[in-house]
Amino acid sequence: MPVDAAEREARIIMSRVAEPGDVDACRLVNEHSAAALVDRLRRGHTGGSKLSDWAERIGCTRAEPLLAQAAAVDAHYICPGDDDWPVQLDDLARLDSCGPDRRGGAPFGLWVRGSLDGAALRRRSVAVVGSRSATAYGEHVAGDLAMECADRGYVVVSGGAYGIDAAAHRGSIAADQATVAVMAGGIDRLYPSGNAALLHQIIAHGLVVAEAAPACAPSKSRFLVRNRLIAALSQGTVVVEAALRSGSLNTARWARDLNRWVMGVPGPVTSRLSAGVHELLRQPETTLVTDAAEVIEQLAPVGEELAPAKAGPTNPWDWLDARSRRLLDALPVSRPASVSSIARAAGLEQDDVTTRLHRLRAAGLVAGGDAGWRLRRE
Amino acid sequence: MPVDAAEREARIIMSRVAEPGDVDACRLVNEHSAAALVDRLRRGHTGGSKLSDWAERIGCTRAEPLLAQAAAVDAHYICPGDDDWPVQLDDLARLDSCGPDRRGGAPFGLWVRGSLDGAALRRRSVAVVGSRSATAYGEHVAGDLAMECADRGYVVVSGGAYGIDAAAHRGSIAADQATVAVMAGGIDRLYPSGNAALLHQIIAHGLVVAEAAPACAPSKSRFLVRNRLIAALSQGTVVVEAALRSGSLNTARWARDLNRWVMGVPGPVTSRLSAGVHELLRQPETTLVTDAAEVIEQLAPVGEELAPAKAGPTNPWDWLDARSRRLLDALPVSRPASVSSIARAAGLEQDDVTTRLHRLRAAGLVAGGDAGWRLRRE
Repeated sequence: MPVDAAEREARIIMSRVAEPGDVDACRLVNEHSAAALVDRLRRGHTGGSKLSDWAERIGCTRAEPLLAQAAAVDAHYICPGDDDWPVQLDDLARLDSCGPDRRGGAPFGLWVRGSLDGAALRRRSVAVVGSRSATAYGEHVAGDLAMECADRGYVVVSGGAYGIDAAAHRGSIAADQATVAVMAGGIDRLYPSGNAALLHQIIAHGLVVAEAAPACAPSKSRFLVRNRLIAALSQGTVVVEAALRSGSLNTARWARDLNRWVMGVPGPVTSRLSAGVHELLRQPETTLVTDAAEVIEQLAPVGEELAPAKAGPTNPWDWLDARSRRLLDALPVSRPASVSSIARAAGLEQDDVTTRLHRLRAAGLVAGGDAGWRLRRE
Repeated sequence: MPVDAAEREARIIMSRVAEPGDVDACRLVNEHSAAALVDRLRRGHTGGSKLSDWAERIGCTRAEPLLAQAAAVDAHYICPGDDDWPVQLDDLARLDSCGPDRRGGAPFGLWVRGSLDGAALRRRSVAVVGSRSATAYGEHVAGDLAMECADRGYVVVSGGAYGIDAAAHRGSIAADQATVAVMAGGIDRLYPSGNAALLHQIIAHGLVVAEAAPACAPSKSRFLVRNRLIAALSQGTVVVEAALRSGSLNTARWARDLNRWVMGVPGPVTSRLSAGVHELLRQPETTLVTDAAEVIEQLAPVGEELAPAKAGPTNPWDWLDARSRRLLDALPVSRPASVSSIARAAGLEQDDVTTRLHRLRAAGLVAGGDAGWRLRRE
């Protein structure tokens, strides 16, 4: 059931007053009510230090200007209980520990902007994330991966950043499928500005979402809590390129903590930008993936959508038993040899050699007869 | 205890009569005696089909010419029980199943050529194997890996082939350490001939070994059983580059079946020559490694020789708590701001902000005072 108008307004205020992902704010609002909390803050009842922090911002914060700023960019606010609320975000409330900075609760609302039916956010989804300063290799792989995942019905979720994120969004758009970008700042601040054109395409093809109130700056610490939304929205997270301290490894950790699948695409060990992925892949919960089929095999219910077995080139010898292969190994390629010398070379009994030579001749692999036998050239 | 002269001679004969790694030959000789077996074959008692195979070669086989062929290249024959026998090869006898072609028993002897004290073969050892048609990337990584492993006291074992094998041997030689090449054919046939100079260097710095008798050709099927010796001689096998059907994946399977460590060096997913390694790394028993330190961490007793933690670049913010980082996030970079506006921007209580600003100024991270505060530029 949707929250009532007063509670919605109070949540909008709290989206500005508390830092995004503040565990205490998320718990208090989700488990009790934002309306009561805002009321208490307005009356100056700030016994605890947490409430004192929030009090710094409550004075100047009202819902209407925030809604107006959002409306100016065709954005609106959704809450748990709304039809298009992505319920998978509520999993964040189940995390036992949210790290030393007490950030990472289940959001009590989201600012959204775009044309994607909200239900799509609950469908099959995969996060594709990685380094901003990606290599051509990383962008190529991320784009391909996202395009094929999108093509097979997965919503690609990422952070809208340069490099891997942008390549992933572009791949999804190339497949003409919805994609979701999660902002660290306000919904009206399409960040980074160099990706503005791409982000507008994402809005046209899908959704841009933000937890922070309109006009909020995308600060460093907001990126880290933003990452938990990327992880929580998706069934699994694929890291394509990441240096050792890359923020995308933080997204992977959130995914792991949320019991989502964590996958990594390897690269050259000589590339600084794959070092973080390799560290991740050395952890037992992480799966190495090399293409979309392997990503989807991991995400789909067990046994459905298995990736096709990878096979190298085959040759006609593959179907032979070991003795026949050994016989072929021992055959001359040019001057024909007698059965007895072939038997000696192969270390196989003569009668068996004779029988096999005739069978292999029928299969087109050897040539010869009473005058001697040899391997048949291709 | 070493075997007696008659038994040694019979084993030399059996090294020519049976195919290398023939499970039945390995078991009969190791558990009973080669002398009795040769005697039975010479008298034509070949009831079973296996004995009939061996009978094809027994007539023309004597020990002296084989020993002479070996002596011509300064090679000799060693057996289990000899001082310099690598006892780790006996593990092969414990394998339950040896595949459909019944090959892979514990060898009953080896032809050896080189200057390495046999005891070195029992020391710390690692196999570095991979594709013959390696890329520059693969050869670079294999060479570096082998050089550092050798430098840290590991004997590098490989197959003497072009590509990764050669790079691994060269790396070990560059570190001025012993390395071991296992031949698929006879000890007098340094194969491939294009690596003859390298193989002579290996003989000078270490050992070339072969299970097949002198003059035996390195046939396809002999490569596969040869691989089990590479795996069994080593504490672990590292695959550097391998296409999907590469023989080095067969070496990795032997290593796994022998409860040795199996490791793989990843590469670009766009490289055909890394596809086999990636398949291997998707199996749970395999460990992704990116450098020698990680290889050695895996091989060494648990907790000894841990690889140094990989760290990205650090910055002074790393040591700050979340509230201070949030405060720095909210500080202007150029025009100084008042404590109250900073507190509002950070969402932190004013008294706490004041205390922290003074502390951060002492640490050299912020500048300012009563006239306002800003971030200090680097």
